[in-house]
Amino acid sequence: MKVFCVVGYSNSGKTTLIEKVIPILRERGLSVLAIKHARRFEVDREGKDSWRLFRSGADVIITSKETTAYVSRFPDNLEFLLEIFGRLYDVVIVEGFKSSNYPKIVVLKDEREIPKLENVVAVVSDFEVDFDPRFRRDDYEGVADFIIKKIKV
Amino acid sequence: MKVFCVVGYSNSGKTTLIEKVIPILRERGLSVLAIKHARRFEVDREGKDSWRLFRSGADVIITSKETTAYVSRFPDNLEFLLEIFGRLYDVVIVEGFKSSNYPKIVVLKDEREIPKLENVVAVVSDFEVDFDPRFRRDDYEGVADFIIKKIKV
Repeated sequence: MKVFCVVGYSNSGKTTLIEKVIPILRERGLSVLAIKHARRFEVDREGKDSWRLFRSGADVIITSKETTAYVSRFPDNLEFLLEIFGRLYDVVIVEGFKSSNYPKIVVLKDEREIPKLENVVAVVSDFEVDFDPRFRRDDYEGVADFIIKKIKV
Repeated sequence: MKVFCVVGYSNSGKTTLIEKVIPILRERGLSVLAIKHARRFEVDREGKDSWRLFRSGADVIITSKETTAYVSRFPDNLEFLLEIFGRLYDVVIVEGFKSSNYPKIVVLKDEREIPKLENVVAVVSDFEVDFDPRFRRDDYEGVADFIIKKIKV
């Protein structure tokens, strides 16, 4: 088990949780891939070479000494993306994709009820919920430890 | 043979050539990956979630219905990139990487001499050169046909 979906309503704090947990996982020597859904996004800026090449019909890789970016026409198919990229990392943290079957960490902010989802493995909330384990919203170490423990199983 | 490096001095017209050849390859039913070198580039804009996740130490995928972007800490190692991404496409057109061993299409603008490079397979120039095949700089169909013929070998 190395894929975890962090799910919750918008503004529940999913991105912040992920952003804080990642450096802890990195400190423990793990490589991490984060996957995020987006309605739409810009592929670089108009007029730049990478944009021209993408517009011409190719998928594009721009690579430098320290960073490589890849823009493709692949759709938001999580299984497909994990098949290509998942094997390159120790842990994959997915934001959203709540209808997938991967293990889910549910973030609750104001809602008192855990949404009915498949394969919930942990809940993050500042109030008591009927789920174990439950981590407080600022317990980034706790969530990171939980993920590491699950990976090693 | 499905990887071609388009090489030449800066401003020789490499990107324009690639940009014009790609739609022709696409029309013939081929999927194309373009790889380009860059000194540095921006990973989305500051403050956006994808930037936050990348800065936190993870490599990042942002995916939408029609497009998927992936930003990694991989260096500009052409063999490595081709190993991961090359198999997903019918043709890979690389801009630059003139010291690689892949087949090279040399674009000449003002220079009258073909640079001494390994594995030159075609020259693009508007003047006579001692190389066969040679294509005029606006002969995009010719270059596309040449690539298609080489792929099928």
